[in-house]
Amino acid sequence: MKDKIKKSAIKLFYKKGYFATSMSTIARATGIRKSSIYHHYSTKEDILLDIFRTSMNDLQDALRTRLDAATGARERMQAAIYCHIIFHIERQKEAIIADSELRGLTARNYKEIIQMRDDYEKKIQRVLEEGVAEGIFVDLDIKVISYAILAMCTAVCTWFNKSGRLSKEEVADIFSVFILKGLARS
Amino acid sequence: MKDKIKKSAIKLFYKKGYFATSMSTIARATGIRKSSIYHHYSTKEDILLDIFRTSMNDLQDALRTRLDAATGARERMQAAIYCHIIFHIERQKEAIIADSELRGLTARNYKEIIQMRDDYEKKIQRVLEEGVAEGIFVDLDIKVISYAILAMCTAVCTWFNKSGRLSKEEVADIFSVFILKGLARS
Repeated sequence: MKDKIKKSAIKLFYKKGYFATSMSTIARATGIRKSSIYHHYSTKEDILLDIFRTSMNDLQDALRTRLDAATGARERMQAAIYCHIIFHIERQKEAIIADSELRGLTARNYKEIIQMRDDYEKKIQRVLEEGVAEGIFVDLDIKVISYAILAMCTAVCTWFNKSGRLSKEEVADIFSVFILKGLARS
Repeated sequence: MKDKIKKSAIKLFYKKGYFATSMSTIARATGIRKSSIYHHYSTKEDILLDIFRTSMNDLQDALRTRLDAATGARERMQAAIYCHIIFHIERQKEAIIADSELRGLTARNYKEIIQMRDDYEKKIQRVLEEGVAEGIFVDLDIKVISYAILAMCTAVCTWFNKSGRLSKEEVADIFSVFILKGLARS
């Protein structure tokens, strides 16, 4: 039931936005009474936090698996780009919520999610540092470049069209070529 | 007075979000009565639309000026990157509103702003096409790469810190080197 509620909430937050969605609407969309939601989530923010946590945890897991399977900074950066883009396309609705509803979290929850994001960013920054140390990436501003890479790869969730001319793998390929060229020590 | 109202609204939409801000709050922050706002804006959405329009118009004007002063695709792309980044830092609050409150616009207004964005994107795409035609940019997926460039340059408004270690010009430089390297036919 918790999962069903979360699914309804994801659809509604995506479509109408977090602030414009009420617990009653979520209950109605799930086909349960409003009082039943409170057995699983004590506030609307709890649902939002669950969405943020789950998607960040899944993204972290996916990145770890991809990075572990790759060798060398070049391959590892490519793996990270693929992972981030494929995730943001496959989990498009959650990605858009995570990208736009941070304001829905109060201080403590906000801090927790920002911490998770920082950890994720650090993993990307480490791959960049490895590449510089290996002498295959140009010596660049690691922080700024990590923000640039994450921002462009995250934004696919806002424009990717499942019935468009490109597959998610093709999009990941285009980004990968462009970013690795930008990083390469030439 | 209209400008004062808009300024208050920008601060409030930035801080609390569009949906969480009421006309009464905007009136109070401006130091006028709620009824006085309605001489200038008939709805809250009108204020939001004005913010979107003004910032898109100013951005378009800035881009035109910068592009006209530049020669060749390489210099023109650099000019576009500078223009976009400097604007999104100098007009940080409006940029964040424009980046996150599109949902506040109803169909007709939404369409108008999307049209303005499309026009802007097309200008960037034209510079990319010029670069390919000149043989200095690698033959790439113009649309996808234009989305990538705009997304990373727009995102500076979310992370740039005016009291941080880098000036806005330094950030623009780092992006410019990275993007032009990614585009270069090597």
